[in-house]
This record gives sequence, C-alpha cells and structure tokens, in this order.
Amino acid sequence: MLNFTVGPVMSNEKVLRIASNSAPYFRTAEFSEIMLQNEQMMLDNLNAPDGSRCVFLTTSGTGAMESVVMNVLNNKDKVLVINGGSFGKRFLELSQLHDLDTTEIKVAFGHQIRSEQLEYFKNKGYTALLVNMHETSSGNLYDMNLIASFCKCNGILLIVDAISSFIADEVDMTELNAAVVITGSQKALAVQAGVSIVALNREALERVKSNKEKCMYLSLKEALLNAERGQTPFTPAVTTLLQINERLFEINQDGGILNERKKIIARANEFRKFISEFQFKFVPENMSNAVTCLKTEKVKATDIIALMKDEYNIWLCPNGGEFKEQVFRIGHIGNITDCDMQKLKAAFIDLKKRNIIF
Amino acid sequence: MLNFTVGPVMSNEKVLRIASNSAPYFRTAEFSEIMLQNEQMMLDNLNAPDGSRCVFLTTSGTGAMESVVMNVLNNKDKVLVINGGSFGKRFLELSQLHDLDTTEIKVAFGHQIRSEQLEYFKNKGYTALLVNMHETSSGNLYDMNLIASFCKCNGILLIVDAISSFIADEVDMTELNAAVVITGSQKALAVQAGVSIVALNREALERVKSNKEKCMYLSLKEALLNAERGQTPFTPAVTTLLQINERLFEINQDGGILNERKKIIARANEFRKFISEFQFKFVPENMSNAVTCLKTEKVKATDIIALMKDEYNIWLCPNGGEFKEQVFRIGHIGNITDCDMQKLKAAFIDLKKRNIIF
Repeated sequence: MLNFTVGPVMSNEKVLRIASNSAPYFRTAEFSEIMLQNEQMMLDNLNAPDGSRCVFLTTSGTGAMESVVMNVLNNKDKVLVINGGSFGKRFLELSQLHDLDTTEIKVAFGHQIRSEQLEYFKNKGYTALLVNMHETSSGNLYDMNLIASFCKCNGILLIVDAISSFIADEVDMTELNAAVVITGSQKALAVQAGVSIVALNREALERVKSNKEKCMYLSLKEALLNAERGQTPFTPAVTTLLQINERLFEINQDGGILNERKKIIARANEFRKFISEFQFKFVPENMSNAVTCLKTEKVKATDIIALMKDEYNIWLCPNGGEFKEQVFRIGHIGNITDCDMQKLKAAFIDLKKRNIIF
Repeated sequence: MLNFTVGPVMSNEKVLRIASNSAPYFRTAEFSEIMLQNEQMMLDNLNAPDGSRCVFLTTSGTGAMESVVMNVLNNKDKVLVINGGSFGKRFLELSQLHDLDTTEIKVAFGHQIRSEQLEYFKNKGYTALLVNMHETSSGNLYDMNLIASFCKCNGILLIVDAISSFIADEVDMTELNAAVVITGSQKALAVQAGVSIVALNREALERVKSNKEKCMYLSLKEALLNAERGQTPFTPAVTTLLQINERLFEINQDGGILNERKKIIARANEFRKFISEFQFKFVPENMSNAVTCLKTEKVKATDIIALMKDEYNIWLCPNGGEFKEQVFRIGHIGNITDCDMQKLKAAFIDLKKRNIIF
C-alpha cells in the first residue's frame, strides 16, 4: 500500500530498521544523550531563541496542544483562538474546557485570515492567541506574518500548532516571536505516531514554572525538569524517540531542513500541476506544502478514497464532519519516491479513463 | 544487549517485523477491525464481566492511571490508596492532585498488606480503593484476595493497576470484582512502549458517563465512544496497536494466557533458585512473577547495574529514590530465551569470581 495521507506517513528504511530491534532500556546515560541531541536539534530546526527548551511527550499532537493550554495559560489569560476547521475547533474546545476566557475568531473553511479579523481584537486585553498555522483539515496555511505581527504589536503570547507544518512549511520561532511551537512525530518527521514535541521560549517557560499543576501526565513542568538530564518523567515511546533522532541527524546531513522542505515542495507542485487538469477545486486560499486539499462535486470523496484503497492500493486522506463527501486530501510528506508519485498520478488518470472522476 | 529490565522489554521477531513496515493509515475499516479484536481479546484475557469495555490510550501507564482517577472518580468519592513504593506514591499524588478526598494506607517497602490495615477503614464512608497490585518498584505482589474481599464486603470500588502484572500474575477482573484494570504495552505484552490499556466494568462505565470531562486527551468518554467503531479520538500509536494485536493472537494460539504465564513463572523460579546462592536478599514478602527485586549490602546496586551494562551487555533495572544504592531488579517478562538466561547467570557467576559480588 502507498500512503498519501497526512500521517502517519511512510518512513524510510533506516528509520524502520530502528523499530525492527527491541527498544533499549532508557534510564541510561546513552538514552539521555540521544534525548539531549533531540532537544538541541529541534531547537535549531525551529530557530528557537536563546534560552528556549523543547520536550517530547508520549501523546498525539492533541496531547501536546492540551498540555500547552493547561501549562502555559491560566485563568488570568484572555485567549483568542483562530478556528478555521477541525483543529481550530479542537484548540477552541481545549481552551474552553480548561475554563479560559476564550474568544473564537471564526475563519471560513479553507479561507485565509484577514487583517481586520485580528485588528478588531486589539486593545481589548487579550493575552494569548492559539493558532494551527496549517489548519490540516482544510490544507490552509495561515498568513503567519500577519498573525505574528498582530501578536507582537499587541503584546499577545503566540502559541503555534505546527504539527503538520514543521519541515513542510517555514516555522521560525524567533521570526514569529512564538512563545510555543508544537509538532509531532508522524508528519514530516515521518516516524511512528505517538510522540509530540513542544518547544517553549523563555516567556513560556516562566509561565509553566509559575502555573499550578493541573495534570501529571501532561505536565510540562515535570517534562522540562526531567529533560534537563535527557529523561522523561514516565516511560516514553523509546523506539519512536530513537527514530526521531535518526531522522533529525539525517536531515542535518542531507542539506538541512531547507533541503527537506524543497523535496516536499517539489512533490506538492508536481501533484498540483497534474491535478489541476481534473475537475477538482483546490479548497484552501493559501496551501500548505504538506497537503493538497481538494473539493469534488460530481463524485463523492468517500467513493474516491475507497476506490483508491481497494483498487489501487493507495491511501488518501478523508475529511470528517460536514465536508465528508466533498473534500479529500493528498499528503506530500513522508518517504514518497518518484515511483510512488507516478503510481498516484496513474491511479487518477485511470479513474478518469473509467469515467469515475473528470 | 540483553534486556532484563521490567520494561520496555525484548520483543519477538514477529512483533518486531510489524514495526519494520510503515504504519498503515488508520481511519479505515481494516484498522477498526484490529482494534475491535484487541478490545475483545483483552476483555477475554482479563475475564472481564459482561458489559465491560476496554480502551487503548497513547500514553504510558501513568497516563492511564491518571485518566482513571479523572474519569472514574469524582469529588464525592472518599478514596483509599495503598502506597508501598513509587507507584503507590504516584496513585496517591494523582488522587490528591485531582482534589479527591484521599487517605493513604502506607505499606513498608516490599511488605505485604495486612488485614487489619484495611479493616481499620471499614464503615468510614470510603467509596474507592486504588492499588498497584504489583508494586513494581519493590517487586511485591499484594494479597489481592484480601483487598478484593475487603472492597466487596464494604461496597468499595476497586481500581487495579496491573501494568506489570498482566499475564505475569493472575488478574481476573470478575473474581476480583474490579471496576477497572489498567495495563500497558511494554510489560509482559512485550511490544513497544507508548500504549496503555484500561478495562472498565459496567459500574465504572456508568461513572465515566456521568462524570464531568476534565481533560480531553485523557478522556475515557471520548475513547469509549470512538472505540465502539474500533477507532480512537486522536491519532494513536498505530504500529504499537498492531503489535498488540499480533501478540494477543499469538498468546491465544500458544495455549493462552496461562501458558504464557507458565513461561514467566519458570524463568522467575529458575533465576530465584540460582540467585539464592548469592548474598542478596529478596526484597518483597510476596514476589510477583514479573520481577525479582534484590537487596545488596556490600556492593552498590548502581555499580552492579553499570558493570552488567558495560561489561556483560545486560540491562538490569535500577531503583530510584532512597533505595537507589541498595536495590536492583531483574525482570522475567518479554522475549527471554534459555540462552539469554544462561548469559544472565554466567554474568552473575563471573562477578562473583571477580569478588565484586558475593
């Protein structure tokens, strides 16, 4: 099967080989060294400012989003949440669940955020803004310069979910003046699912230190304390952390994160040029490099996905909720070869020949 | 390296082969089927009563312990926590962190619980009891008949952490009248770390349904709802869940859980007979089959562990905290061969010859 979803995605041979061995015991100096390397390489790749830290949680991306809401924010905050799809909705629900004074900035599915939508909230006492820079459900990449500049001008803490953007799109923590950046193992890092990553600048670290503990498992305080010696408070997904180490070293040795991004962009461009000959519409105003989100009118999205899986051995990514039958997504992250790309295109061409798509 | 810790432990070839392939996409009928099988096999192996359910969380065991404290209990509960080591302490801290009316039953490290320690709390309005049936830090297996009978007689909800006991020791949910049993992927299931498992009987399920949501990521309500169709609310550790499926089928086909336990008991007995010729003391009054916990007097535990790692390529399990220099542990779970056992014994014999241990 070929996996063209947005995660978990296909891993390369070296990464897979790590998981074909039993995990080492982890309360050792050797494993600590690997974790310290992971932290440093992540901070470098995010261009995190001096004094930043990075921790690895054994959770999905949602676990990291919630840990940030619980540990970095508190009930004195006034929080803006940009909601343009499933993941914006999730941030909104998390902020509300934890009793934060929360205001939603609703963005239509696939749409870009406008300056006036943000400016409306200036000088109103807001202290933090939560955004999924790539709203993975629509494929839209928000205008992060606009958002970052609004936050900077108004002294608002910027918290960025870059789960599906990291590597695929530019995420520069210093440039954005982001207090927190979140990502995960199963997107462009292209290793197993189950580890999320949280990078925090000095201001966020101060907040974590002074906030009251609300959850032991999602405690960033505990994670940070243990990470000082390259450890985790609880048994982590050891194998996945070793895979992350392998991938981060690989990326460094292979021209760095920019080169890795170039490969993703090349695949995205190739696919988008190809698919524009078909009668699909691109959903987002501003596409992330990680995924192409398409709208289908004549044929159901779920039918396309089922046919691709059952007759072409290709997984595409379905959408849930109200757009289930209209929207589907093709991922450009993970270990996708040229040959895989040809098979993907051939499958679309064949579906067209069969008069199933147009 | 040979891994004789208590987890993550060594996996067998079939299990490792699963992780040597990229994970499949998981929002599919095929993956749902695997998850439904996992749930049913776990319930069967735990002899869970009719109407019980089982969910899989992408967390360590602590994540599952906390999810149970948050989802099954509430501030009307009066909670007893048996604390005889690190994991008892963790349950205690979790219960206190979540503002439950909590009473500690302190048990000396490695000691068995006595009837009078429990009876003291009868007719005092207690509604729930939390116990790590195998206090993994000391290797002590509590008298679960005593605890279960106390809970039954007093209408107290019994919540059992069986993380390191499942398979290794008998865990019969019906027999114990346990409302909840918790276990994890990296102990006797012997697959990758990163997945915890929570089985709940009808009463616990009712409690989850009526309790207020406190944490999205650790929500059992969401996990249960999604598990009805074999899914998870968030991207799970897909590969580890496939490995669990493989292992549960293997165990079924290879004489069932009793036969799997026999192998662990045989290794534990073999090692205990062997090590009793040395000048170590067994720490626990009543040993779990999963691990042998030893006390060393003349030589530091950390020295033995370091020598075993650096000179014999064997990982043993250190203890943290106050017993760091006196206590170390040898695990009997995971894919340990006869040959591995011989190497372990040879290493101890060699250390004795070198006058390092006695």
